[in-house]
Amino acid sequence: MKSSASSVSADAVIGVLDRLRARHPLVHCLTNGVVKNFTANVLLALGAAPAMVEHAEEAEEFAAMADGLLVNVGTLDEPQMAAMRRAIPSANSAKKPWVLDPVAVGPLGVRSRFARELLVHRPAVIRGNASEIIALAGQTGKGRGVDSGDASEAALTAARDLTVRTGGAVLVTGPVDYAVDGARTFACSNGHPLLTRVTGVGCAQGAVVAACAAVTEDRALAAVSAAVFIGVAGDLAARVSPRPGSFAVALLDALDELDAEALRRETRLK
Amino acid sequence: MKSSASSVSADAVIGVLDRLRARHPLVHCLTNGVVKNFTANVLLALGAAPAMVEHAEEAEEFAAMADGLLVNVGTLDEPQMAAMRRAIPSANSAKKPWVLDPVAVGPLGVRSRFARELLVHRPAVIRGNASEIIALAGQTGKGRGVDSGDASEAALTAARDLTVRTGGAVLVTGPVDYAVDGARTFACSNGHPLLTRVTGVGCAQGAVVAACAAVTEDRALAAVSAAVFIGVAGDLAARVSPRPGSFAVALLDALDELDAEALRRETRLK
Amino acid sequence: MKSSASSVSADAVIGVLDRLRARHPLVHCLTNGVVKNFTANVLLALGAAPAMVEHAEEAEEFAAMADGLLVNVGTLDEPQMAAMRRAIPSANSAKKPWVLDPVAVGPLGVRSRFARELLVHRPAVIRGNASEIIALAGQTGKGRGVDSGDASEAALTAARDLTVRTGGAVLVTGPVDYAVDGARTFACSNGHPLLTRVTGVGCAQGAVVAACAAVTEDRALAAVSAAVFIGVAGDLAARVSPRPGSFAVALLDALDELDAEALRRETRLK
Repeated sequence: MKSSASSVSADAVIGVLDRLRARHPLVHCLTNGVVKNFTANVLLALGAAPAMVEHAEEAEEFAAMADGLLVNVGTLDEPQMAAMRRAIPSANSAKKPWVLDPVAVGPLGVRSRFARELLVHRPAVIRGNASEIIALAGQTGKGRGVDSGDASEAALTAARDLTVRTGGAVLVTGPVDYAVDGARTFACSNGHPLLTRVTGVGCAQGAVVAACAAVTEDRALAAVSAAVFIGVAGDLAARVSPRPGSFAVALLDALDELDAEALRRETRLK
Repeated sequence: MKSSASSVSADAVIGVLDRLRARHPLVHCLTNGVVKNFTANVLLALGAAPAMVEHAEEAEEFAAMADGLLVNVGTLDEPQMAAMRRAIPSANSAKKPWVLDPVAVGPLGVRSRFARELLVHRPAVIRGNASEIIALAGQTGKGRGVDSGDASEAALTAARDLTVRTGGAVLVTGPVDYAVDGARTFACSNGHPLLTRVTGVGCAQGAVVAACAAVTEDRALAAVSAAVFIGVAGDLAARVSPRPGSFAVALLDALDELDAEALRRETRLK
Repeated sequence: MKSSASSVSADAVIGVLDRLRARHPLVHCLTNGVVKNFTANVLLALGAAPAMVEHAEEAEEFAAMADGLLVNVGTLDEPQMAAMRRAIPSANSAKKPWVLDPVAVGPLGVRSRFARELLVHRPAVIRGNASEIIALAGQTGKGRGVDSGDASEAALTAARDLTVRTGGAVLVTGPVDYAVDGARTFACSNGHPLLTRVTGVGCAQGAVVAACAAVTEDRALAAVSAAVFIGVAGDLAARVSPRPGSFAVALLDALDELDAEALRRETRLK
């Protein structure tokens, strides 16, 4: 259950990008209404393919056809909960990875109970900020809405606890992003404060995790790769613009532009 | 039932744009949650006016007030199906054209049955990729999510079959877009691969078809005009940027900039 | 009940921006599906924090935690009406201001009855175009969808009538924006026609009103401040681009760039 700092190479992350660009994984996103468009554009810019199918009956059908599934509880309502409850077992039966993004779990009751209920279905990766990960694990956090009141380091124990229960990985996001599984802890310090000035970057990162998990069996590698892709793209975009509107445009451009050379030059892993 | 290659002039398409800019048709969009914002911005950039009214009772009221209606089944749920079932007869009674976009019809059950059920209400135009048109006509396609597995030419027989049943036109999209009605086949080869790297371009094109159908009784002309507007704007935008984030911005700018001169210079019709 | 032209200084508006940037008010947005993403990005660009929580039970919980609430009836459906009915009393109990945006009230039945029903809960500010304000007050307007058929001046009597009923302020938007309360009328003539070519600017302005009302008790000052912020940012953005796609990007950048100097130079109040 204890894991200590490990290392992952830029080359391993580059390998994930190469496979993603070769296979264009189709990611079924059951996500919140604020970020659907941006999430789809992030996936397309990186080289994956998005699809949002909301009707419960179709969500079950589609989860088995897609290459990965994202479940983001940001604007949960009863019909979407029903769709998620049918899509997740369908993805599992078809051996497609699913990713849980427990947005604002902690202060809000319905989603907190629901997200904890979903853990039994063993998400391949859980992606959240420190407050969300701490709350999901059943501890007490400091979250306020979608912002974390806790440093990402503070959530590592909770993250490891969750990996034991799911058998998958956890990505704890913050100034440093940590990807942990039962054995390893990868840390990525890419990323720029402007990423927090564009709505949905974190939510879109969850979809990127699902795209990565569709092309590698290594869940912690999938998680850290998504952190690197968004983080490096953010670093590149911040050199194009210091303002949030044009930064968001540059971020999509940078995801398209990412390649082995940029990743080898920019990636800050430990 | 057989139709052969016909020709439409750039001048006819320019006439549609002129009328659209003079009348600012109000398009009621019952569309998917991923593309609502982008669809509205595409309509505004071109010179039309968007409105999304989702409550079934209001959708019925509003379909009679608006100048055209778009029904896009991309993220169908039960309340939206109810709204569509009330809005379509209302549009028909008020003699306002409605457009059907059968997103991902074929692999998914609910929307496939629903879209086929809607054909009896005789959409003015159906817009879809080859796989969707083939599946909607009751044949077997190769669609995977929102992407087409079939070349647009392969769907021409299915498209003609649909025009017989609806009395309207069909726009089959792909590298070449085909607009067919009972008598004619127009082909437009404008468009750029970057258009597939921005989510919702196809869905927004469906709304543009509805805007065009609001200003011309010629359904095939409305369909091919929408193909030309999006295609030429894509060609112009690709000269501004090779990356999807800034390309999407340039696409909206290009729709605003479209005029008779640009259309005369750029349109590739046959 | 009668109010006459009054004046508000640029310094008072600058004070609101300073407090907003110091406190980052969290605005709970129950708003329409077309503009959620853009609304969130407008709040973030200006310095506030957005959150959309749609489940009725959670909306009630969250309205008490957030610093302000926006209720926008643009794409109302039954579940969202239920969420609004629970969120509003919760915000009131917690003494958090709520803002009503009566989009397209007048021609459409459900939302018109619903918005009038909400008045008893005394919104801190109502924001709408002239047609919407006239219709909400129970008079007869000329609205067509989301566009106003009436000049903003024509709605001042209706606006004053509403302030008597709510005890709050009303922001009537148009070429000149008017903020009225029981005693005063502020007028702002900032703003550019391009603001009407980007979907959701008005709706996002409603969220900005809620952010401002979270940092000042003076409802009319909150209303006029939001008019100034969007108006000045629009003026600045129009100098960057005359086309709607790049204008929308520049608008977000300008909201981020707004400061005391720009406001002192650009604000046109009377």
